[in-house]
Amino acid sequence: MDQQRWQKAMEWPLVVAALVFLVAYAWEVIADLQGSALILAEVIQGLTWALFLLDYGMNLYLAKPRAAWFRSHLFDLAVVVLPMLRPLRALRFVTLLRVLDRTAGVAFRGRITTYVAGAASLLIFVAALAVLDAERPAPGAAIKTLGDALWWAVVTVTTVGYGDEVPITPQGRLIAAALMFCGIALLGIVTATFAAWIIEKIAVQDAAQQAATVAHIKDLEAKIDTLHEMISTLRR
Amino acid sequence: MDQQRWQKAMEWPLVVAALVFLVAYAWEVIADLQGSALILAEVIQGLTWALFLLDYGMNLYLAKPRAAWFRSHLFDLAVVVLPMLRPLRALRFVTLLRVLDRTAGVAFRGRITTYVAGAASLLIFVAALAVLDAERPAPGAAIKTLGDALWWAVVTVTTVGYGDEVPITPQGRLIAAALMFCGIALLGIVTATFAAWIIEKIAVQDAAQQAATVAHIKDLEAKIDTLHEMISTLRR
Amino acid sequence: MDQQRWQKAMEWPLVVAALVFLVAYAWEVIADLQGSALILAEVIQGLTWALFLLDYGMNLYLAKPRAAWFRSHLFDLAVVVLPMLRPLRALRFVTLLRVLDRTAGVAFRGRITTYVAGAASLLIFVAALAVLDAERPAPGAAIKTLGDALWWAVVTVTTVGYGDEVPITPQGRLIAAALMFCGIALLGIVTATFAAWIIEKIAVQDAAQQAATVAHIKDLEAKIDTLHEMISTLRR
Amino acid sequence: MDQQRWQKAMEWPLVVAALVFLVAYAWEVIADLQGSALILAEVIQGLTWALFLLDYGMNLYLAKPRAAWFRSHLFDLAVVVLPMLRPLRALRFVTLLRVLDRTAGVAFRGRITTYVAGAASLLIFVAALAVLDAERPAPGAAIKTLGDALWWAVVTVTTVGYGDEVPITPQGRLIAAALMFCGIALLGIVTATFAAWIIEKIAVQDAAQQAATVAHIKDLEAKIDTLHEMISTLRR
Repeated sequence: MDQQRWQKAMEWPLVVAALVFLVAYAWEVIADLQGSALILAEVIQGLTWALFLLDYGMNLYLAKPRAAWFRSHLFDLAVVVLPMLRPLRALRFVTLLRVLDRTAGVAFRGRITTYVAGAASLLIFVAALAVLDAERPAPGAAIKTLGDALWWAVVTVTTVGYGDEVPITPQGRLIAAALMFCGIALLGIVTATFAAWIIEKIAVQDAAQQAATVAHIKDLEAKIDTLHEMISTLRR
Repeated sequence: MDQQRWQKAMEWPLVVAALVFLVAYAWEVIADLQGSALILAEVIQGLTWALFLLDYGMNLYLAKPRAAWFRSHLFDLAVVVLPMLRPLRALRFVTLLRVLDRTAGVAFRGRITTYVAGAASLLIFVAALAVLDAERPAPGAAIKTLGDALWWAVVTVTTVGYGDEVPITPQGRLIAAALMFCGIALLGIVTATFAAWIIEKIAVQDAAQQAATVAHIKDLEAKIDTLHEMISTLRR
Repeated sequence: MDQQRWQKAMEWPLVVAALVFLVAYAWEVIADLQGSALILAEVIQGLTWALFLLDYGMNLYLAKPRAAWFRSHLFDLAVVVLPMLRPLRALRFVTLLRVLDRTAGVAFRGRITTYVAGAASLLIFVAALAVLDAERPAPGAAIKTLGDALWWAVVTVTTVGYGDEVPITPQGRLIAAALMFCGIALLGIVTATFAAWIIEKIAVQDAAQQAATVAHIKDLEAKIDTLHEMISTLRR
Repeated sequence: MDQQRWQKAMEWPLVVAALVFLVAYAWEVIADLQGSALILAEVIQGLTWALFLLDYGMNLYLAKPRAAWFRSHLFDLAVVVLPMLRPLRALRFVTLLRVLDRTAGVAFRGRITTYVAGAASLLIFVAALAVLDAERPAPGAAIKTLGDALWWAVVTVTTVGYGDEVPITPQGRLIAAALMFCGIALLGIVTATFAAWIIEKIAVQDAAQQAATVAHIKDLEAKIDTLHEMISTLRR
């Protein structure tokens, strides 16, 4: 079995695992689970995590120049291994977002507006969950409910930043920093989409003023070829 | 009667209804109406709302592949039906903005600066009204007057976000979130307009360096056609 | 004397008047003048203002289809007349900025970076002055010194909006709103300049891949013309 | 020895000096050095600074039209001389960033994403150090630890601006203002990169619709040249 077939076969299992992980994590964080329910949610997350680890391991095993693949996928390694350290739990979402992103890319190809809206919604929800998880136990934290966390995530990702609710734990601030840079990227993508659309709209409408295309050149070539033939018959 | 004629016939009545609705709502919110005046304002809003419902119903009735129209206009349905639930009143403005947007598009076609300025002003005014309506009854809310609400809307839509006045009710926060995303879009449109303008400005000025156009190709073709004719007479 | 000669003749006197106005206003606001010094500063500002009024009046008198000029310059009228009402004093700066902008445009034509930097600096300084003038007399205002006002203006124009210093008077808030929209425009211009630069940079470097230009078409035409002549001599 | 060889020879020594300076400054600020350690750190910084001064002096000495070089490098002079005044210490970082920027430009040429990420990270770190240095001694300041300073720098450069931590010293505010404008530039670069990418993506995919290139014109020319030769042989 080669690496490409493995990746193809794992595409959907990984998406399902990512969704299961998201649901289990959301349940744990929103319901603020305790006791056996908490253990169940953690076990489910652990199992899906094991699948991501397995996928990384198999990819490493199957990669042809293994050392080269390892070197060019250090970020994958970090994202799979680091969340084992409890303070870096939020890093699990990077893997989640990457898996969902890959499939979303398949589903929404070409419809950039739908794709950006979907990615932004998922990002806001996931950031709200992660920050709620990090902040709730901290004394004096402002973000204590899912509503607060969602409100904070929207205020942050749009770069409005009222400051009425601000993370105060190191983990919460790391998540916030990541969300801010995503906000800049979001702004960039929205602007760029408008720019592409406007530049297209204001492009010269008069056909005679449009740029000459390859099709036009082909027409000219055909005419010159005819001339060529005509002169050839003249010479005979 | 077909759907297109219905839409054409309803264009101006809907705009008038939207303006009447806007005035009645602004009156109710700004004057903080009580008693019979409140009932009058609510009745006027109800009547204009009935017209939007009628428009939706007729469109559904007249649409040729009715099921297809229904599926592709679920958003319209939501926007017309959901505001009946009192906490979702602010959704009425989406319909309002869409109706005004359609006509504004007719009036300002091509003058993107005027259009963006008009849309931004309307958006700020409408968001201020809706947030004032949602926040005023809440104890401890900072937004209590129209002046406060307008100030808050400007601070939010520009993504400045001082945080001196922040909505605290779920409804107010939903309106704020919508306004923030509109702010991102506003930023995007302004930037894109400048970008299109600058890219046009810095385009090469030297005529000989400009891209070859279809007009140039046509000239070449004419010359080659003349050659063609000349060689044809040679052969005779 | 026609309107065009009047405008040409007034170009530099208006710039000098704008600078004198700026210095007198800055002196009044920064030194928080009282007594006779205040009267002197106000008189100087009044005189420069009279020059702007005179310029408006002469333009109206000299304009050929006078009614048309009046209708298309309602904004100029508002900007010249409204500042007579004391609460709208800050509007004087719009005229000031427009006059300086016209000359700056002459001086910096083509050097967009220098121009944007200059305009942004002037805007920040002028907004800081105007907000200081509006806020200082208000009890409970946070902006009491020029340093505070400049800090506030930078925080606002960049859309950062910490909220540590916020205007609380209606006048101060109007100035702030104008500054915020200028901030959006500033962001837009900076982004657009980078976009134009990057799009130019990533344009294909390989000469053979560049768009065909008018110069190329001219070369082809010359070759075809030569063919034309050769065939003509053949026929003779 | 001419100026170009000097600059080439000094390229790496200056980068090493910049890194040594950065480490020494970070050590002094983070560890809040006192006594002999502080003196050591200051001496190291002074030595690297002497190298920058030497570089400026040699450049001035070697420049061919010396007066012209001096006039067009007033900014370099300011950046090298002003940091000697203690309140303007932070200006030293401008030189540091410029030196690192020059080499980074060599290393990352063409990989704009890596370059922007690297520059943004360095900028955030350096701004955090400088603001920590300026704010820590001030009574009532909110920024007292490196963690706070880094958090503040991220919140500021992304233009989110919560306002939970705000510089209160004039020096800190100058650094903040510089960081804000860098944030605008960062936003601009990110947006522009996306815009360039999207505009490229939505460019017409159909080959026949692509703009005619110089390569196409060359093909046409070759065909016309063949015609030329054929007609020439006809005439003989």
